[in-house]
Amino acid sequence: MMLADLFAGQRGPVDGPADLVLRLGAADADDCAVISCQGDFDLVVGTDYVRGPKFMLHELGYLSLYDLGYYLVAANLSDVAAMGASPLGVLTVVRYPPGMTDAEFTEVMTGIRDSAAAHGTLNIGGDIGGAERLILSATALGAAPVGRAMTRSNGSAGDVLYVTGPVGDAGAAVLYFSKLKPAGKSLDDDVEAELLRPWRRPQARLGAGAALARQDLATACQDISDGLRATVDELAAASHVGAEVNLADVPIGRGARAVADLLDVDPCALAMSASVDFELLFCSPPDRCADVDAALAEAGVHPVAIGRLVVDPHIVGIRDGVPVPLPGVAWRHQSEDPESVVLPSLRDAAEANEPGLEG
Amino acid sequence: MMLADLFAGQRGPVDGPADLVLRLGAADADDCAVISCQGDFDLVVGTDYVRGPKFMLHELGYLSLYDLGYYLVAANLSDVAAMGASPLGVLTVVRYPPGMTDAEFTEVMTGIRDSAAAHGTLNIGGDIGGAERLILSATALGAAPVGRAMTRSNGSAGDVLYVTGPVGDAGAAVLYFSKLKPAGKSLDDDVEAELLRPWRRPQARLGAGAALARQDLATACQDISDGLRATVDELAAASHVGAEVNLADVPIGRGARAVADLLDVDPCALAMSASVDFELLFCSPPDRCADVDAALAEAGVHPVAIGRLVVDPHIVGIRDGVPVPLPGVAWRHQSEDPESVVLPSLRDAAEANEPGLEG
Repeated sequence: MMLADLFAGQRGPVDGPADLVLRLGAADADDCAVISCQGDFDLVVGTDYVRGPKFMLHELGYLSLYDLGYYLVAANLSDVAAMGASPLGVLTVVRYPPGMTDAEFTEVMTGIRDSAAAHGTLNIGGDIGGAERLILSATALGAAPVGRAMTRSNGSAGDVLYVTGPVGDAGAAVLYFSKLKPAGKSLDDDVEAELLRPWRRPQARLGAGAALARQDLATACQDISDGLRATVDELAAASHVGAEVNLADVPIGRGARAVADLLDVDPCALAMSASVDFELLFCSPPDRCADVDAALAEAGVHPVAIGRLVVDPHIVGIRDGVPVPLPGVAWRHQSEDPESVVLPSLRDAAEANEPGLEG
Repeated sequence: MMLADLFAGQRGPVDGPADLVLRLGAADADDCAVISCQGDFDLVVGTDYVRGPKFMLHELGYLSLYDLGYYLVAANLSDVAAMGASPLGVLTVVRYPPGMTDAEFTEVMTGIRDSAAAHGTLNIGGDIGGAERLILSATALGAAPVGRAMTRSNGSAGDVLYVTGPVGDAGAAVLYFSKLKPAGKSLDDDVEAELLRPWRRPQARLGAGAALARQDLATACQDISDGLRATVDELAAASHVGAEVNLADVPIGRGARAVADLLDVDPCALAMSASVDFELLFCSPPDRCADVDAALAEAGVHPVAIGRLVVDPHIVGIRDGVPVPLPGVAWRHQSEDPESVVLPSLRDAAEANEPGLEG
């Protein structure tokens, strides 16, 4: 059975007010669903559970409960940002284990509240109660200009591929703090702080997403919480095109670069693998590039052009002018969690002292 | 720290489109948050995690994975019903454990899909992935007539208290299948089916809720998923009034009655205790009672008047014309789960062969 069959019938008029129409549902596999309200905006809504094995850094003592609450909200708002919507609020599910103290619970809720505020929105409600262990899930609501919510599927060959900021620090942090530091390898305090920032104070690119949608500057957009390589794959596949990525242009996080040095692996391979970065990957027609730069500069974001969409439905890297397989390990939703895929591959590469993962 | 402080600032204009205003947020403690869209409807949104210890009946083999998916959607839509909104869709978080087969996963998703369809709406998206164990959470969206979303806090002394259907079967089912049947006590197959129905095919009272809101017939409304006794407490407290409940008028489910007989406890005490029934408790001014009956009859629901709100801020039962403490055990959100509060009390009562729990 195809996943889409499990959501059968999700297109078409929604029961209820006759003027509400579901524009994008589950079968569209975008970051959020979109409901047209036939008014001044389209409603955008997405939901993400975040508390799972990916919080290895919490178990290792590097993320506080406050940090987890903060992360929960940013992760959910990132999906709203990817659709080009302005946030209307978040709803949060916080289920706490029997041993959790009031002070600890308050820490989670304060992180949630502060993250919502930092993103210009509010925690408008949710579900609080006990459970066997800590469970954190949320839903984010947003409003997009009518008909302008950005999808993954509208890119065309020739469009320029952009990313809104450096990639790879989040994934490199897991590798460093769980494997390298315990083994005695260590980095300067300021680099460690750089590695932890995307986990402790992640920032959804709401301003950038809204600017792109408002001015209709992007043909497709997606956040790169699956890692850059997987996201390029997904966006290109949804748009029925291929992509060329100029590897020298990929903006690599300073932390990721340092960890790649420690491991002696290709920094680009590490940075493009599973890494929960909340930057946006988007594409724009070449004649809009000046407008893209201007609009995003106003939002305080300086996007980096990393390649383009092409007719041939393959994804390739370009290194020194020569096509090469795109480096990195693409995370697939089918697998357990990012680390289970990427860490062994990178570790194998490091142990074998291979030059990287381009092969 | 008060719970409301954790959601500080949640009233007032929402950042984003200037014409969107949060009418009800987390501090209001209603079933859902309400966002005014300054258009033809107000947006209503709530979220509930359901997979926890309360699924004892699944662990005992009485609920299938399909049933759990079905329940997840109904439980979330019940909050939308309590606000008087028509459903716009549900988003679901389904995280599956490593050992779950594709067939099992499909069963959960099919239950979700069928429940949404049975309630006249759709599963519009969500989050699917792995986790250490099965995690089920959802968000329901609805549209309410502008300014008419029903809260808990607007009831007045003199209003008639109604419940939309029989109560107690859900709670009695847990007691029966987990404690009585394993101990050799048994009920007829059709009574067992009656006990399982609210778990296997729960029905959110969407038609009734929407009819009440459309015609502005209820001053306050809430679903009784915390059990009737706790819900009367909550609604009266939110409305700053007391309540009198005519115990002889409380509609007790057939299954709950049979289980109370087996236990030799007061059926009313059992039926009003923690029981996840998805009926609605609402109150209406006495001069609207005829309209209430007519409007709900059209929705196929026959509400039962069980008492009234009073000025004196206490909750009392009336038995044979005499005020008595309201029977049953009120579930509080602070406690682990309904069963942990109610079962011991009822079991103690049963073992001591006491007449009930009125004391």
